[in-house]
Amino acid sequence: MHQPHFGSDNASGMAPEIIDALARSSAGGVDSYGGDGLTLALDERFGEIFETDVSVLPVGTGTIANALSLAFLAPPWGAIFCYEAAHIVVDEANAPEFFAGGAKLIGLEGDHGRIHPDALRRAAATMDAEDVHHPRPSVLSITQASECGTLYSPNDIGALCQTARDLGLAVHMDGARFANAVAALECHPADMTWRAGVDVLSFGATKNGCLAAEAIIVFGDRRKEVPVLRRHHKRAGQLFSKMRFLSAQLDAYLESGNWLRWARNANVQARRLAHGLEKIEGVRLLHPVGVNEIFLEMPLAIFERLKRTGFGFYPIQPTGQDTGTVRLVTSFNTSSDDIDRLLLAASTD
Amino acid sequence: MHQPHFGSDNASGMAPEIIDALARSSAGGVDSYGGDGLTLALDERFGEIFETDVSVLPVGTGTIANALSLAFLAPPWGAIFCYEAAHIVVDEANAPEFFAGGAKLIGLEGDHGRIHPDALRRAAATMDAEDVHHPRPSVLSITQASECGTLYSPNDIGALCQTARDLGLAVHMDGARFANAVAALECHPADMTWRAGVDVLSFGATKNGCLAAEAIIVFGDRRKEVPVLRRHHKRAGQLFSKMRFLSAQLDAYLESGNWLRWARNANVQARRLAHGLEKIEGVRLLHPVGVNEIFLEMPLAIFERLKRTGFGFYPIQPTGQDTGTVRLVTSFNTSSDDIDRLLLAASTD
Amino acid sequence: MHQPHFGSDNASGMAPEIIDALARSSAGGVDSYGGDGLTLALDERFGEIFETDVSVLPVGTGTIANALSLAFLAPPWGAIFCYEAAHIVVDEANAPEFFAGGAKLIGLEGDHGRIHPDALRRAAATMDAEDVHHPRPSVLSITQASECGTLYSPNDIGALCQTARDLGLAVHMDGARFANAVAALECHPADMTWRAGVDVLSFGATKNGCLAAEAIIVFGDRRKEVPVLRRHHKRAGQLFSKMRFLSAQLDAYLESGNWLRWARNANVQARRLAHGLEKIEGVRLLHPVGVNEIFLEMPLAIFERLKRTGFGFYPIQPTGQDTGTVRLVTSFNTSSDDIDRLLLAASTD
Amino acid sequence: MHQPHFGSDNASGMAPEIIDALARSSAGGVDSYGGDGLTLALDERFGEIFETDVSVLPVGTGTIANALSLAFLAPPWGAIFCYEAAHIVVDEANAPEFFAGGAKLIGLEGDHGRIHPDALRRAAATMDAEDVHHPRPSVLSITQASECGTLYSPNDIGALCQTARDLGLAVHMDGARFANAVAALECHPADMTWRAGVDVLSFGATKNGCLAAEAIIVFGDRRKEVPVLRRHHKRAGQLFSKMRFLSAQLDAYLESGNWLRWARNANVQARRLAHGLEKIEGVRLLHPVGVNEIFLEMPLAIFERLKRTGFGFYPIQPTGQDTGTVRLVTSFNTSSDDIDRLLLAASTD
Repeated sequence: MHQPHFGSDNASGMAPEIIDALARSSAGGVDSYGGDGLTLALDERFGEIFETDVSVLPVGTGTIANALSLAFLAPPWGAIFCYEAAHIVVDEANAPEFFAGGAKLIGLEGDHGRIHPDALRRAAATMDAEDVHHPRPSVLSITQASECGTLYSPNDIGALCQTARDLGLAVHMDGARFANAVAALECHPADMTWRAGVDVLSFGATKNGCLAAEAIIVFGDRRKEVPVLRRHHKRAGQLFSKMRFLSAQLDAYLESGNWLRWARNANVQARRLAHGLEKIEGVRLLHPVGVNEIFLEMPLAIFERLKRTGFGFYPIQPTGQDTGTVRLVTSFNTSSDDIDRLLLAASTD
Repeated sequence: MHQPHFGSDNASGMAPEIIDALARSSAGGVDSYGGDGLTLALDERFGEIFETDVSVLPVGTGTIANALSLAFLAPPWGAIFCYEAAHIVVDEANAPEFFAGGAKLIGLEGDHGRIHPDALRRAAATMDAEDVHHPRPSVLSITQASECGTLYSPNDIGALCQTARDLGLAVHMDGARFANAVAALECHPADMTWRAGVDVLSFGATKNGCLAAEAIIVFGDRRKEVPVLRRHHKRAGQLFSKMRFLSAQLDAYLESGNWLRWARNANVQARRLAHGLEKIEGVRLLHPVGVNEIFLEMPLAIFERLKRTGFGFYPIQPTGQDTGTVRLVTSFNTSSDDIDRLLLAASTD
Repeated sequence: MHQPHFGSDNASGMAPEIIDALARSSAGGVDSYGGDGLTLALDERFGEIFETDVSVLPVGTGTIANALSLAFLAPPWGAIFCYEAAHIVVDEANAPEFFAGGAKLIGLEGDHGRIHPDALRRAAATMDAEDVHHPRPSVLSITQASECGTLYSPNDIGALCQTARDLGLAVHMDGARFANAVAALECHPADMTWRAGVDVLSFGATKNGCLAAEAIIVFGDRRKEVPVLRRHHKRAGQLFSKMRFLSAQLDAYLESGNWLRWARNANVQARRLAHGLEKIEGVRLLHPVGVNEIFLEMPLAIFERLKRTGFGFYPIQPTGQDTGTVRLVTSFNTSSDDIDRLLLAASTD
Repeated sequence: MHQPHFGSDNASGMAPEIIDALARSSAGGVDSYGGDGLTLALDERFGEIFETDVSVLPVGTGTIANALSLAFLAPPWGAIFCYEAAHIVVDEANAPEFFAGGAKLIGLEGDHGRIHPDALRRAAATMDAEDVHHPRPSVLSITQASECGTLYSPNDIGALCQTARDLGLAVHMDGARFANAVAALECHPADMTWRAGVDVLSFGATKNGCLAAEAIIVFGDRRKEVPVLRRHHKRAGQLFSKMRFLSAQLDAYLESGNWLRWARNANVQARRLAHGLEKIEGVRLLHPVGVNEIFLEMPLAIFERLKRTGFGFYPIQPTGQDTGTVRLVTSFNTSSDDIDRLLLAASTD
C-alpha cells in the first residue's frame, strides 16, 4: 500500500523504473569493482547530460559524496566556506573534517540559506592564504537547492563562483536535490554547474527515487586529479564490489528524463501543499518554496490533525505554547490525492 | 542470459529472493536513517541466528565493515595482528589505518592463510603494552573463510581467541565469506564466533547473492560501546538514508536458510570443479579447497581453453613460460552445468 | 644589547634564571624520555602550586598543548565551543581539528574576547547530543587571559564551567598567558582553574621567559585517563628525548615565584604604556588592558614615530587613510626605560 | 659532576658550546616563529655543509622529524618500505601512520639493520602502483647509521636509491645519528644523501650534544613542494614561537666542525669499549660496531659489575639463565677515563 511520509523525501522508496533496472542488471557475471559496462559508461552518460567531459564516481550516500568531494578539493589545513547551517556543518557528524584530515568549515550567514558573495569575501579576508598559521582559504561549498528549500539562480552561482575564483577557492556544489533544482529553474544542468564555475558536484539521486545512488561529478581541469579522488573513494569503502547496481540506478535515473519528471512532480506537489497550507489561519511559510521542501510555523493543533491522516511526519519543534516549526517534504511519488487529503485534514477542525 | 564469471563471487548478481525483497520493501513511506521496521528488527533477527544478544550495523561494503570494526576495537596507537596477506593488509588501500587514526597492521605468517597462536604470541612479545613508544597490542583479526579459501575449525578459533585474550587483545573476524564457512563446517554460527571468543564480526552477504549488504555484528560486553561505533558508522557515510534497503537484503538473506543454501551451492560446485581440474595433467591445487575459492597452478594453454567457454575470468598470473596461478570462485548461482562446461573445456584439447 | 620587541612577548628571549637552570641541569647522564628526576617531580611541583593532585605533561609549543588537550577531551565527532577569534580557531593551521580526528570548533561571540554562558547555551542547544548526525557537544575552551588581553574573573569562569557541566561538556583553558592572568587577578591559581571547574589547562611558560616550555595540566577525575593522553603526547612527537631540559625550565619558572614576578612586570609595564598612549590625541584603546597586551587604534604617523625608537614591532593594520590598529605586547624583561622611550617617541612630533 | 649514562646518547646533556649559543642568542627581541636571523640563515648554513641548495625546517624531536618527512613524501594510501625493526616501526607509537593519514609501513628483512635492494624489489612487486585496492608504493626510508649501529656505504645508499627510483619511490633517510655516520665513513655529507639519491633527511642533533634540535632537510626537486611541508610543520605544533633557540643550537652544532668532532669522540670511545669488552670471556658482539652503539650478549654477572661503576644503564634483556643482551651507547662527552673505568669493572671479578 502506498502510504507516503512527509518527513523527508528519503522516507520514500524506489521508483518502479529503478527496481526494474536493478533486476535487469543482475543477470550474468560481470567484472566487479566498477569493471562492468554500466559503470564504464557513466562518464559518457553524464557527459551527455552536462554537455562536457566529466568524471563520475558513484557512491552510496550523500554524506560521503560531500565528504570525499571536500577532501578532494581542500588540503587538511584548508578552510571550507559554506552556509552556517549547511548540511555538511550540522548533520554529518564531522565527516567532512574527518575525510579532509581536519579541514575547517567556516559558516557564513545566508538569506534563506543562500550565501552572498560579500559574506564570502568578508570571511576570506580574515585569513592570509600565505600565512602558515591561518587555515588556508580553499573551497566554497554551496547547496542547490539550499538547506531552506530555496534556489540560487545560475547568475547567483556564477557570481559566487567568480568571487571564489578571485579568492583562489575551488567550488563544490552539494546537489542532494539537484534534480529538483534543475526542474524548478528549467535551466540546463550545465548552466547551474561548470558553466557557472563549479568544479565538483555531489549529484544526488537517492532522495528522488533511487535505492542508494549518488555520484561525485568532476568538471574541467580538476579531472586531471581524479586518480587521487579514486584513492579517496576506495579508501573510504565506496568502491562497491557489485558496482553495477549503483550504476544501474544512475543509468535508469537519467533515462528518458526520469529524474526531471520525478523531481517536477515533487516540486509541483510541494507548491500545491504550500499554497493550500498558507491560506490556513495561523500557518506561516518560513522560507520561499523553491523545490520540494516546505518550512512552516503552524499551530500544534493543526499538526496534530495532519498526523491523523496516517501519513508519516517527523516531530514538530515547539516554538511556543501552541505553535511550532516543521518541515514537510514531497517526493517523486507524492500524488495529488495525498496533498488533497493532507490539506483537508489541516483545514477541517 | 545467465553467464557466470569465475573471477570472483562478487562478479555475480543478486538472488531472485533479494530482488523480490527489495521490491516489496520499497512500498510506502518509512522513517529514514534506520528508523524503519526492518532495520529496527535486525538485532533480534541476527540474535536468533547467533543465539545471543547482538548489535547489528548494516554497511555497504566489506572494506568499510572491516575498517570500522577495527577502528572500533583498536586505538590509533594500536597494533592489529592478522595474516600477512590478509585482505585488510593488501587490498583495502589503507582503509583500516585511516579509519583507525593510524593504527598499525602487523602481518603474521600463516598455514594456507591460517594464523597459529604461536605466531601471534611471538609478534605480541616484541611489544610492551605499557610502553608509550610501542604500538599497543590491541586486536587480532582473523578471516573465516581465510584468504586462501581454507577454514579454521571452531577449536582453532577458540585457541586463537584464548591466546588473544591472554595478550589483552580484542578479536575481530572478517567474515566476507562467513556463510560459506558455516555451510562447509556444518557448525553453528555461534560456535565459530562469540562462543569461541570473537568480539566483532564483519558479516558478509554481498558476495553470496545480495546487492550490497554487509553487517558489523557486535557480541558480548563490547555491545556497551556500540554508541561509539554508531558515531564511526555515521561519520563514515554508512548511515544510509534509505537504510530499509540494506536491511531488507539482510532480512531476506537470513530468511528460510537462504544464505546457507546459497553458500552450500557455491561450496559444492567449487569442490566439483576442483576435483575435476586436479585430475588434469599439469594442474595443481595450491591450497586445500575449504569453501568456494580454488587456487590453482595450471598450464597457460588450459587457461586459454577455459576462457573460450564464454564465462568470465580474471587474468592468470604467469609463474613461468607455460604456467600460471589463478583463482576461480564459484557463486550462489553457479550451476552444475556451468561446472561441466568448464571441465569439458579444460580437459579437451 | 637589550633591544625589546613590542610585537609579541614571544619575541623576547630567556630569563637569566632559565638559562642558569638549563646549564645546571645539563650535567651528568640521566634517563631519557622523562625518566629524569626533574620530570618525575613535576606532578608534585605543580601540585604545590595548584594545591591539588595534578598530572603534568611538558610539551614544546602552545599549539600542541592546546591541540593535545582538545584531542584528549573531545571525540572526533565532537564539537568544541570557543571564542570566535580564539587562537585555536584562527592561528593554529587546523592543528586542533587534526589531532582530534576531525572534531569541529564552534566559534561564539564574545565581549572583548570573553564568552558569556548564554552564548554557550544557545550554541549547544542547536545540537542534540544523542543524535548521531550532529556534532556531539563535548568541550568548552576558554582563553585566560583572553585573545583581547582581557580577563575572566574566577566567578566568570565558575559560571561558564557550571554551564558547561550542565551541558555535559568538559572544560579546557588555554593559558598561554596564565601567569599574567594570575598576577593581574591576584588570585590563587586553583581558583581560576580546577576549583572553578576547569579539567585541563594549557599552562604557558615560553612567552614569559622560557626557551620552549609549556605544560598540559590535568585536574581531578580526568587524571584517570592520563595514560591515553600519554599516547597522544608520544605520538605527537612531544616526548622529548632530553625531557630534563623542558622540566628544568618549568622547575625554574615556578621557583621562588619567578613566573609571577616576571608576569607582574609585563603587566605593570603594559599598564604604564597604555596610560601613556591613551592620552595622546588620536590614540584609542580597543580593549580594556587586563594583562600585557594593548590593542590600539592610532594615527599611522604616530606608529611611524614609534618604529623609529629602534624597538621591534609587527606591522600596523590600516583601517583608513591615516589610522590603523596594532597590538603592543610587553614582556618579562620590558623595562620602565623602554616604556619611557616609547612614550616619548609617540608624543613628540 | 660528570657521570655518564651508557643507556643512550640522549641520556647525555648539552655540549658547552650549545649552552653558550643559547645564552648568546637570548639577547634582545627578534621576530618570532622563525622570522629571526638565525632561522632565516639556516638554508644557507646547511647548504654550505651539503654543497647544494637545501630547505631546512627545525623541529623538536626525532619522532616528528621522521613523521613529518614521511607525511610529506607519502600519500595516505601509500606504502613506506623500511627495515622491519626500524625506529619508525617499533618505537614511534604509530606517529608516522598518524601524520601520513594512515600510510602503511612495510618492514623488510635486513643484514644487521641494513636493507638490500632485492628485498625492496620483492616487496614492491607484490603491489600494483596503479591498482586502487593496493597500498601505493611511495617511499623508501633508510636509517643511517642503522638501528643496529651499522653503516651503509655511499655506494650502498646509491644502489638502494636507484632501486627506489626505478620503482617510483621517494627516499627518506632517518639520520638520528647522521653525524656519527659521516664521522665514521669520513665521507662528504652530500655523498651520503642527495648525491646518492636521498630526497629528505631527518638530520639529528639532539643525541650529539644539543638540547632539542633536529632538522628536516629537503633536497633537489622536492624543494618546490616545501610550502606544503611548512603547513605540516605548523599544524604539527613544530613552528616554535622562539624558533631562534632551535636555530641557535643547529648553528652552533655546525660551527667549526663541532658536530663531527663530537661524533668522532663518541665513535672512538665506542670502538675502544667494544674492543675491550669482546676480549672478555662470555661477551659477544651482536652487530659490527659502525658508530657509537654496541649491541652485546654478556653474562648477567658482568652486567651487574658494570652497574657498580655508578654510570647509568638501561636494563639488560635476559636471554637465558645467566646471559642477556644489552645496548651500550657512547656520547659526545664520553671520556677515555669513563671507558677505562667501565672496562676495569667488566673484567675484574
